[in-house]
Amino acid sequence: MHYLLLNFFFFFCSQIDHFGFLQDGTFKQRYLVADKHWHQPDGPILFYTGNEGDITWFCNNTGFMWEVAEQLGAMLVFAEHRYYGESLPFGQASYSDSKHLNYLTSEQALADFAVLIENLKSTIPGARNSPVIAIGGSYGGMLSAWFRMKYPNVVIGALAASAPIWQFPDMVPCGDFYKVVTQDFAKSGDNCDANIRRSWKAINNLSSSASGLQWLSEEFSLCTPLKNNNDAVSFKSWLQETWVNLAMVDYPYEANFLQPLPAWPIQVVCKYLNFNSTVSDYQLLQGVAQAAKVYYNYTGNSPCLNTSQTATGSLGALGWFFQACTEMVMPMCTDGVQDMFEPEEWNFQAFSDECNSVFGVRPRADWAGTVYGGKKIGSHSNIIFSNGGLDPWSAGGVTSNITQSLVSILIPDGAHHLDLRYSNKLDPPSVRDARALELKYFQKWIRQAQKSTGTRPSISKNWKMFT
Amino acid sequence: MHYLLLNFFFFFCSQIDHFGFLQDGTFKQRYLVADKHWHQPDGPILFYTGNEGDITWFCNNTGFMWEVAEQLGAMLVFAEHRYYGESLPFGQASYSDSKHLNYLTSEQALADFAVLIENLKSTIPGARNSPVIAIGGSYGGMLSAWFRMKYPNVVIGALAASAPIWQFPDMVPCGDFYKVVTQDFAKSGDNCDANIRRSWKAINNLSSSASGLQWLSEEFSLCTPLKNNNDAVSFKSWLQETWVNLAMVDYPYEANFLQPLPAWPIQVVCKYLNFNSTVSDYQLLQGVAQAAKVYYNYTGNSPCLNTSQTATGSLGALGWFFQACTEMVMPMCTDGVQDMFEPEEWNFQAFSDECNSVFGVRPRADWAGTVYGGKKIGSHSNIIFSNGGLDPWSAGGVTSNITQSLVSILIPDGAHHLDLRYSNKLDPPSVRDARALELKYFQKWIRQAQKSTGTRPSISKNWKMFT
Repeated sequence: MHYLLLNFFFFFCSQIDHFGFLQDGTFKQRYLVADKHWHQPDGPILFYTGNEGDITWFCNNTGFMWEVAEQLGAMLVFAEHRYYGESLPFGQASYSDSKHLNYLTSEQALADFAVLIENLKSTIPGARNSPVIAIGGSYGGMLSAWFRMKYPNVVIGALAASAPIWQFPDMVPCGDFYKVVTQDFAKSGDNCDANIRRSWKAINNLSSSASGLQWLSEEFSLCTPLKNNNDAVSFKSWLQETWVNLAMVDYPYEANFLQPLPAWPIQVVCKYLNFNSTVSDYQLLQGVAQAAKVYYNYTGNSPCLNTSQTATGSLGALGWFFQACTEMVMPMCTDGVQDMFEPEEWNFQAFSDECNSVFGVRPRADWAGTVYGGKKIGSHSNIIFSNGGLDPWSAGGVTSNITQSLVSILIPDGAHHLDLRYSNKLDPPSVRDARALELKYFQKWIRQAQKSTGTRPSISKNWKMFT
Repeated sequence: MHYLLLNFFFFFCSQIDHFGFLQDGTFKQRYLVADKHWHQPDGPILFYTGNEGDITWFCNNTGFMWEVAEQLGAMLVFAEHRYYGESLPFGQASYSDSKHLNYLTSEQALADFAVLIENLKSTIPGARNSPVIAIGGSYGGMLSAWFRMKYPNVVIGALAASAPIWQFPDMVPCGDFYKVVTQDFAKSGDNCDANIRRSWKAINNLSSSASGLQWLSEEFSLCTPLKNNNDAVSFKSWLQETWVNLAMVDYPYEANFLQPLPAWPIQVVCKYLNFNSTVSDYQLLQGVAQAAKVYYNYTGNSPCLNTSQTATGSLGALGWFFQACTEMVMPMCTDGVQDMFEPEEWNFQAFSDECNSVFGVRPRADWAGTVYGGKKIGSHSNIIFSNGGLDPWSAGGVTSNITQSLVSILIPDGAHHLDLRYSNKLDPPSVRDARALELKYFQKWIRQAQKSTGTRPSISKNWKMFT
């Protein structure tokens, strides 16, 4: 709906390999610019560090940037992450094999952003002295934080919304993520988490017979009926991911992020899961099926449920899988006690073997911690880490202040980067406060950049009125 | 001479490509460890970020580290830079073509250092909480500064000695480097710079005839006689590089860094170049020849002068040429007025074409500034930039304080990283002061690391006595 505000879709020729000189090819990186509110010259630039998906989708789901642009006199730039959306280094062949996928890394993406910004500042009249702030959510938030850490010469600060920069080996307990999911369900309805916890055994019971599999397939209106035990295992994974996604998008108003959903969708889901303990497997799973349909068929337009997909097609699931199989090694585990899922330990070796069989690559478990600092990030500055209390990704996030300029903002009633969304009359006060505080930090960083002498020329009079 | 103090030469298996996952091979990176003075546990580690050459050579020319090790209770580690010395990713094939050279970049080298340190800290008993300080000279100094900028989680600070981190496009005037060289000669003897300035025309005059070329070849005792004008051009380049090298190693005592030389070698050289303006071309060039032999034959053991080499074979000239042809684009120019050389403009296109013909790669002029920040490095911390007033590389160095923790130390009487060398009774007071101040900063950083809570465990009692 905000395409009207966008001036242009642009493409920038970026190096396919910033870190080597053999591969000298370039690719077209897409970025979007909106400068309606920009105060030229020297007004700030808010730069969205695109994550694993189509940049137009992130653009439309980051209303916060549109709203603060006017207050800051800022230009907005949304840069697409390489290998997603239309920014494919090798076109249709980009995902054909590990050779073509070799340049899909966060380091290359950050270099793309840095080179793009340097180019924009030297080519857009009046932008040379514009302070740039990086903004991103989820993996995009990790990128915005890392961008400030690695390229403080390019961005004066970063808002890292719901960015699990510590969801890496040996940084946080692997089970915390699913604990948060479970807590969300536990507080959204009576017995809600308990019934989900019991549902796995019920599914196991039914899936041991052909008639049971058929009953499940019909009850869940599956597009592709379950045929055997392997299908049942995949079915459970799909359900588990459904509950996780619901926790991520448990927003206080009707929204369409991963799927079209009602306000507080987990409360709606939990209305179908309030059985006491005497319920039969069939009754329980009828409830689960209705709950799942809240997520997959809120519009009533889905003739059947497709277990091969759990979220919007705007996200690039294969690319993210490759990234998880290389740098983004995020241990997860469940115990069935502190969470509502079937117990499953984190098995790095099995994961590595799977990556090797799918992509022919193996993950480097410690690399992210070494290159991005893990918990030793105290010497950096000007990063806001915002986290929602309902968001499972907060388990791997920075949820307390590290220094005076590496600050945490908690949004107890917020799900996954709620603060980045358009404001809404149903927004809880905590997210309103968070956005106001984020804006204040932006203004502080911009003032700092103005004041700094030598490296940063002074800002024009035109700009000063906005500080 | 200090091999006796070295515990071991080690090899560490490092990734050939830290920034991609297709090339999953490893190579043996050499590093040297000396822990005689190390206070275990938790004593600091001084880590030399190896530059373009054999690490044992840097080890032996960095006496400062050996001298402060005892005072700090520090372990010394000298890490060899990939593609130099014995750290060849593809063995003898490492330099065979641009495909094999593709992993010779500063970013890969920094990643090697980071991964090596993380490994040492997790495998050497008592090293887990050891604060690490990066130290390097020249390109190694650039690496140490960049290492602190990019991996502040790995090193608590850096000493960047004679590190020309601003010798990149649009950061400093391209002629400043040769101006410093010229000043060194101007102040080391009467008419010294003027006679070198006049020598180029004299060489041109003589090299226009076969007899003149023969005379030059004999007078300079060249191993390979000059045959034509092309040879004469190369001969002039070799002489120019000779004067540059002399400026770099104009140390106050007899030393053998690039070549064996007397104390204050430029003063010795200039004794042969004190003609007044009435001298003939032959007389002038006889003086130049004697001056060149100070540099190339101080020992008297060289039967002839080899114009294909100007410095120790411990440096990897081809590797550095490749690096200059990719990331390390360092513009240089002369005007013959403010310097004593033949005028030559900086011609990026010609340089790029040469790189393309030699290696099949083209340099990226702006990349170093983008990735390492150029002049916008004020948000970093704990880096000492030391520079010698006699060192031409000071022209591209940081010669004034940027912030309270990005400090400059000037050594007016110092040549190229004199401060890193062993102390000597002929050391000028300025270098003694510099070393004392550098040690104080090290101690301050170590105390900071001890104090910091959360990210860094407290240091043992054993260690506290050394602060």
